[in-house]
Amino acid sequence: MRVAFQGELGAFSQQAIQQLLGAKARPVPQARFDQVFAALDKGSVDAAAIPIENTLHGSIHENYDLLLKYDFAITAEANVRIVHNLIAPPGMSFAQVRKVYSHPVAINQCLEFFARHKRIEREPFYDTAGSVKMIMEQRPPGGAAIASELAAKVYKARILKRGIEDDPQNYTRFFLLEPAGSKPRGNRKGQSPWKTSLVFSTKNFPGALFRALSALALRDLNLVKIESRPLRGKPWEYLFYLDLLGRRDDEAVKNALAHLGEVADFLRVLGSYRAAV
Amino acid sequence: MRVAFQGELGAFSQQAIQQLLGAKARPVPQARFDQVFAALDKGSVDAAAIPIENTLHGSIHENYDLLLKYDFAITAEANVRIVHNLIAPPGMSFAQVRKVYSHPVAINQCLEFFARHKRIEREPFYDTAGSVKMIMEQRPPGGAAIASELAAKVYKARILKRGIEDDPQNYTRFFLLEPAGSKPRGNRKGQSPWKTSLVFSTKNFPGALFRALSALALRDLNLVKIESRPLRGKPWEYLFYLDLLGRRDDEAVKNALAHLGEVADFLRVLGSYRAAV
Repeated sequence: MRVAFQGELGAFSQQAIQQLLGAKARPVPQARFDQVFAALDKGSVDAAAIPIENTLHGSIHENYDLLLKYDFAITAEANVRIVHNLIAPPGMSFAQVRKVYSHPVAINQCLEFFARHKRIEREPFYDTAGSVKMIMEQRPPGGAAIASELAAKVYKARILKRGIEDDPQNYTRFFLLEPAGSKPRGNRKGQSPWKTSLVFSTKNFPGALFRALSALALRDLNLVKIESRPLRGKPWEYLFYLDLLGRRDDEAVKNALAHLGEVADFLRVLGSYRAAV
Repeated sequence: MRVAFQGELGAFSQQAIQQLLGAKARPVPQARFDQVFAALDKGSVDAAAIPIENTLHGSIHENYDLLLKYDFAITAEANVRIVHNLIAPPGMSFAQVRKVYSHPVAINQCLEFFARHKRIEREPFYDTAGSVKMIMEQRPPGGAAIASELAAKVYKARILKRGIEDDPQNYTRFFLLEPAGSKPRGNRKGQSPWKTSLVFSTKNFPGALFRALSALALRDLNLVKIESRPLRGKPWEYLFYLDLLGRRDDEAVKNALAHLGEVADFLRVLGSYRAAV
């Protein structure tokens, strides 16, 4: 099974693919998110893994936009804990590290490490896994990288220090996408609850969202995410991203979706899948 | 008036300060957001300007966390359009540009420019304004930068190409923070509507948010932002960020806040201010 993702081999998205599908899935790197979607659309891959939100940085609107542009099914979700490791070529000791390369976002998530080791310089690089590839190929003197454990494995580098991130509560949520009509995948960790993700918009009047949410509340459905996003070029009109507990074939969810369809301007169900545990 | 912001002189946050307060406010750069808040807390600045959300990248949760940690008043908001410019030292022509330095996020927002000019290499750098400072000080051969118009002005560099970003709909929303109890600032562009920003949490039961929103809907108050954020260590419990149209002293808003206080576990009003126009 070929699975597209954005980034270099060893990226956190590749780790998501392992969590979602096990080690036998074949990761297919792409430079940009739109290329990930296009690869699945033209059938050059069987599935795609995309990040959709991060506990520190919020929702990735670009991928919500692409979910609306294409018509794929979300068949599974995964939460990947973002663990940053100090990684160097084999043979280099921690005392020899002088420069650390990584994506600036990763570097900025390890500021306590740099405060404790003031001799070490920070060097911005394109991405985390790519910085490991570079130090292994070019061996800059005293050069190390910050990236995932998987990146160390992929490029045969060595982890000098594990978990150097400031905040251990850094998780990214990923969706597995497959062609429209694909069945949701079983959760390998047992029977977690079903989730359904949808996007809808409402006309702009006071109480519009309240009325839309009544479709769920009247059926005792539990909402697990809601987020408004201003609609381009339509001041005070919004798209809403919403996740609820339940499956689209459940009687209550079916009725709620029909009701929501009446009060919303636009409604699209992105998929029903087992909640990540 | 001294105003703290995160980044180097010439950053988009400094542009926000100009939009918020005019050219006479004195920008005080800080390396990190927590240092921006700490500077205002200890009184070494009079105000702070912080980004709170971006149209492409969503809400900046870190700053919502810091808003809850401290007790400041939001006294104004501004929307800054993120325009990326190709900037070089005076005397360098576009034909001479070989390498462009900038923050990877800015570089990735200008991919069409790089696709059209394949001779130009991309070099990741710490931040956008900092990359202009660097090319002016170090003059790397063929080196240019991507940053704001203000950065070109601050470091006396020259704009070779304006507006090279792929997506013109890239806006960042900023808050001006002042000590608790400060009065909202008048909007210099006339009488735009009032907005009130709040954060609340609810117990976890189906319809909890619906019940909370009834406090607004029953009073015909218009909601202009809502976003859920999982509470750390409390599965299925959420913080909600909410903005409504109205001022906290308005009768309807006062009543709605009292009602919301009854049904929420926790409620904090972050401020009432004139909507940016």
